Amino acid sequence: MSDTPLAIGIDFGGTTVKIGVLYRSNIIDSAPPIGTQDFDGPDALIEAMVRVINELRERHPGIAAIGVGMPGFVNFEKGIVHNLTNVRGWVEIPLKKRLSDATRLPTVVENDANCMAYAEWKRGAGRGLNHLVAITMGTGVGGGIIVNGQMVRGSQYGAGEIGQTSIDFEGRKGAYGNLGALEDYVGNNEIAADARNRYEEAGIHKNITDCSPAALAAAASSGDAIAIQVWDDIAKKLSTTIMNCCWLLNPEAIIIGGGVAKAGDLLFTPLQKHLFSQLSGPFKDHLTLLPARFGSEAGMVGAATMALEDAGFDL
Amino acid sequence: MSDTPLAIGIDFGGTTVKIGVLYRSNIIDSAPPIGTQDFDGPDALIEAMVRVINELRERHPGIAAIGVGMPGFVNFEKGIVHNLTNVRGWVEIPLKKRLSDATRLPTVVENDANCMAYAEWKRGAGRGLNHLVAITMGTGVGGGIIVNGQMVRGSQYGAGEIGQTSIDFEGRKGAYGNLGALEDYVGNNEIAADARNRYEEAGIHKNITDCSPAALAAAASSGDAIAIQVWDDIAKKLSTTIMNCCWLLNPEAIIIGGGVAKAGDLLFTPLQKHLFSQLSGPFKDHLTLLPARFGSEAGMVGAATMALEDAGFDL
Repeated sequence: MSDTPLAIGIDFGGTTVKIGVLYRSNIIDSAPPIGTQDFDGPDALIEAMVRVINELRERHPGIAAIGVGMPGFVNFEKGIVHNLTNVRGWVEIPLKKRLSDATRLPTVVENDANCMAYAEWKRGAGRGLNHLVAITMGTGVGGGIIVNGQMVRGSQYGAGEIGQTSIDFEGRKGAYGNLGALEDYVGNNEIAADARNRYEEAGIHKNITDCSPAALAAAASSGDAIAIQVWDDIAKKLSTTIMNCCWLLNPEAIIIGGGVAKAGDLLFTPLQKHLFSQLSGPFKDHLTLLPARFGSEAGMVGAATMALEDAGFDL
Repeated sequence: MSDTPLAIGIDFGGTTVKIGVLYRSNIIDSAPPIGTQDFDGPDALIEAMVRVINELRERHPGIAAIGVGMPGFVNFEKGIVHNLTNVRGWVEIPLKKRLSDATRLPTVVENDANCMAYAEWKRGAGRGLNHLVAITMGTGVGGGIIVNGQMVRGSQYGAGEIGQTSIDFEGRKGAYGNLGALEDYVGNNEIAADARNRYEEAGIHKNITDCSPAALAAAASSGDAIAIQVWDDIAKKLSTTIMNCCWLLNPEAIIIGGGVAKAGDLLFTPLQKHLFSQLSGPFKDHLTLLPARFGSEAGMVGAATMALEDAGFDL
């Protein structure tokens, strides 16, 4: 078995496009981020990406594949970006073909939450498992699903939209008309708004910026009863969605990453309690709740790993 | 390609065990049902099943495999019945080994809802699809899931428990401590109880037996406004769970069977409305909502089909 080759991992975000050179899960080199909004449309931005890729290849001639994680809806098989919510002009862009034509390297283009899940599955907390659900919690709540040792992409490559599933059939109306979407309760902004309301009801005025997940974690760690209650409430809501995934898919592990997961035990202890009290034996006795191994590098790691595997290289 | 052989399909219920001989999806012969509760424990009941199987094999020497659908938790790979809620003594019974030792025929033992899903996938409404969710609605609500052209069984063979997933994180407490389980809202008994309450609130007294799904369907067909509202309410709750499956798995089809589904358009029309108003394009544009092809024979058809496929025969 030959050694794993190097791969380019690209984390395409709404603000910056980060391009790195990866050896397994290590970012061994990277270029300065490209400003996503600094270009007049996809053509110019893709050209800039190719320039950076070429520079990195001069320094690392062994690069064997390119993986791109995109913040939007992607056809993985065709490598077409259907649309990006926060970047204008990115509609039906054949990014895989554009990059592979320009670089002559095998390329994959995938949704960023699926890349995160792939990173955890192949390189992180879920290595060796055949059935897992990965959740990433930030402004949005996303995820990716592994079943029977395969990534679940679904019929139109949309699968894994965990944050859009409902926890309340009469709940808040979400972006797609969906009632009670998890993301509309435990996304960063919703957590902050709910926490500020709780403080306000207790006669304590807080700015919204003092109610970020990080601030709420710090407050709960210092014994702030309201912040502790906020974390229990987040855990309760999140446990409902995770429980649904367990009854449906009977996974071996749930892996949770993203900013909110940095709260650690403040989140995981009540989450374990709420989740395990709502499952029967076969669903919980072999289930592990795990923090993600990777942080902001998850997208790059997953995209690069997926690119290598898709091109047939050993991992 | 040789013709599909005959198979034994067994529908093991809490009241009767039905044993049939199947050619593809047709029950070409069957034995009188065995009373599940007429035997003092699993040994005697298994012996009775073997006697019936032997009688059927004398009439049909070409029988090539045996499939059993069980109303409980089963390890599909090992063929062990872990437990049955409604039949005493059935705890950790190696049914696959017992039947295959006695008959020398390849045997599979599977959860009955998974058999129903398998029947629809291989022989019914979902033929040729790679991503589908099948739901069976009766006293309980069960289901089975196909992803990437494979049955999803999960790490402990428990997957597909659609009726146990939550539609309300603060809802009714279910059998496993799970809050807001779909089954606790749209199981036959819950539908009847909710309907009777609605009538009562309107000053109309109904017996619970007049509130069966069949009676409610007849009433709604005659223009009964309360019954119509009941069906809309069932559809709304069911749409939440189906929507969750769609966001998670992005299937091509949802197949709905069981007694409640016999209401036809009374259920499917509001279900289509509630479901499709809560999904974005890629999740709904290629999605079909289908009534199941099979009724009470689904378990036998699915078990027999699974047995043949597992033993390597052409379907």
